[in-house]
Amino acid sequence: MITNAYYAQEGHGPYELIDIGALDLEEGGRLRSCKLAVATFGTLNAARDNAILVPTWYSGTSKIIEQVYIGPGRALDPEKYHVVVVNQIGSGLSTSPHNTNGPHGMAGFPPVRIADDVRAQHRLLTERLGIERLALVVGGSMGAQQTYEWAVRYPDMVQRAAPIAGTAKNTDHDFIFTETLVDAITSDPAFNGGSYAQSADVAAGLKRHAKMWAVMGWSTEFYQAGRPAAIGFPTLREFIDTFMTGYFAPMDPNDLLCMAWKWQRGDVSRTTGGDLEAALGRIKAKTFVMPVSHDMFFPPADCQREQALIAGSEFRPLQSIDGHLALFGTDPAFLQQLDVNLKALLATPA
Amino acid sequence: MITNAYYAQEGHGPYELIDIGALDLEEGGRLRSCKLAVATFGTLNAARDNAILVPTWYSGTSKIIEQVYIGPGRALDPEKYHVVVVNQIGSGLSTSPHNTNGPHGMAGFPPVRIADDVRAQHRLLTERLGIERLALVVGGSMGAQQTYEWAVRYPDMVQRAAPIAGTAKNTDHDFIFTETLVDAITSDPAFNGGSYAQSADVAAGLKRHAKMWAVMGWSTEFYQAGRPAAIGFPTLREFIDTFMTGYFAPMDPNDLLCMAWKWQRGDVSRTTGGDLEAALGRIKAKTFVMPVSHDMFFPPADCQREQALIAGSEFRPLQSIDGHLALFGTDPAFLQQLDVNLKALLATPA
Repeated sequence: MITNAYYAQEGHGPYELIDIGALDLEEGGRLRSCKLAVATFGTLNAARDNAILVPTWYSGTSKIIEQVYIGPGRALDPEKYHVVVVNQIGSGLSTSPHNTNGPHGMAGFPPVRIADDVRAQHRLLTERLGIERLALVVGGSMGAQQTYEWAVRYPDMVQRAAPIAGTAKNTDHDFIFTETLVDAITSDPAFNGGSYAQSADVAAGLKRHAKMWAVMGWSTEFYQAGRPAAIGFPTLREFIDTFMTGYFAPMDPNDLLCMAWKWQRGDVSRTTGGDLEAALGRIKAKTFVMPVSHDMFFPPADCQREQALIAGSEFRPLQSIDGHLALFGTDPAFLQQLDVNLKALLATPA
Repeated sequence: MITNAYYAQEGHGPYELIDIGALDLEEGGRLRSCKLAVATFGTLNAARDNAILVPTWYSGTSKIIEQVYIGPGRALDPEKYHVVVVNQIGSGLSTSPHNTNGPHGMAGFPPVRIADDVRAQHRLLTERLGIERLALVVGGSMGAQQTYEWAVRYPDMVQRAAPIAGTAKNTDHDFIFTETLVDAITSDPAFNGGSYAQSADVAAGLKRHAKMWAVMGWSTEFYQAGRPAAIGFPTLREFIDTFMTGYFAPMDPNDLLCMAWKWQRGDVSRTTGGDLEAALGRIKAKTFVMPVSHDMFFPPADCQREQALIAGSEFRPLQSIDGHLALFGTDPAFLQQLDVNLKALLATPA
């Protein structure tokens, strides 16, 4: 366990840490006291049927969801809905390698799967928050992986699902991309097998990791259109060294690796013996599949193949040359398209 | 200087090493004795007007050009044309960091630019081989960068040009992608600032570099379609560890870095004070611009922007889910399309 001020309430709160007890993990490990960092917006109505769940993505927390996606007049409107944002295990806010004591902390943290997160969230909602029905589960990237897992695993609880820029079963290409991210960190001698005193020790590895995100996270058109300057970084060097590197630099390496391990292995078909069609066939939620047009690692074609296996679903790609990291909210037109689609989905009878 | 059997005649020959003398470099350095490794096919006719120049790409040599692109009945038909394949500086066959003695060898090798290669090739052709006119310059990737540089720099000598999967001016996105490749090698402690005893010492860095090529070199559709298995590697792990890693493992790290530095800075507009339109306006060659449909770092859109600035040129994208590395010759349909286009180009009056 080490201290990392980046994840504190000051920067990422307010969030509530809710202990859901011991969580047995699919890979055989156990989180003895699984704490989920939860941020809620709006009020659960008397019918208890206006809850929306938003799981988080790799490196993201409830803070960016709050700042970019939630607000009056938005699809995720706290005046209408009770929005529950749950930070994933390993996010740095919830139980994570860096904040776990003893031999199971840091590099000793057990491998966690997307399904472990979803089971933990299910327990949180049903046992602690009194929520038995979800009007919508919506998430981007790893949030989409969790969204799919929710819709497959708890089909009677999820009324609507909106996986954005993510897949139900990860692809080989994406697995290898993520492996290069992992390698960037673990190859830094200062990573030292996961034993370091602070994130800054692993600055070189985290910088290489950030640079790979610069290559794959946006798109070729993003650079061609001069978008780095448009979002405030006049030179390519500033964009890489200030924005991309600065974004990842304070994060905990072991936490990122915990999430990356999950991301690589996202696969709803584990519940159906490897049969993806059967797994997606379980979904009862009205589902809008929303890839980003220029996403380089969760490309529309990979998402459309899965959408075709979900009854009554709709393929609603979002146009943005910002690619995968349009999720950051850099492209107002992307957010507008997303809101239009989410509002349409929420208006669809369950 | 170190010995590296990978680049020997046994594996990459036959090629002739031709010393073109001292070459002053744009960045201020000097190659005291610039040797170009040249492989020729077919015979120069009496009119001396049937020569085709093929410059090489990053990591590639004249051998793959011979094996995949040249043959009777092919567009590059040695029964009709005198095909001259020139291995680029830093390729490992021509003058390169690993085969240069003294303080200017290895990490002391001076920075070389695409334009330096093209000037060296121009001297080779005009002063040593008696070639004053080129029926065609054709190359892929860094070979395309050299093709553009040839057409801009020596417009009266190049009758036809076929840049495949490459640009006249490199993009920011591609610059950063290449930087991640560079980082993968230089971050290996065994790279040791460029002082190592053999490539195998830098195996870890070269493997990370190979894995990044696996992500960006092919395409998401390539993996989705199970192409790794189709080309002989049943599992993703074998594809990465045997094919991709095996391909790059014997190459010299300093040589790769020499080429990468050039690649990052390819820019024909250096001849016109940064005015790309003016530079491409110099081209007199009949030009077919041929990106690969699924190329992740020289995407069709980036190539089409340049094509629009070349008088009388044609945009002829080649369809292949093998992406950039379709250049390897893994997709017969790609080679067929290429040959159709090159034959059409060669049939066009100059």
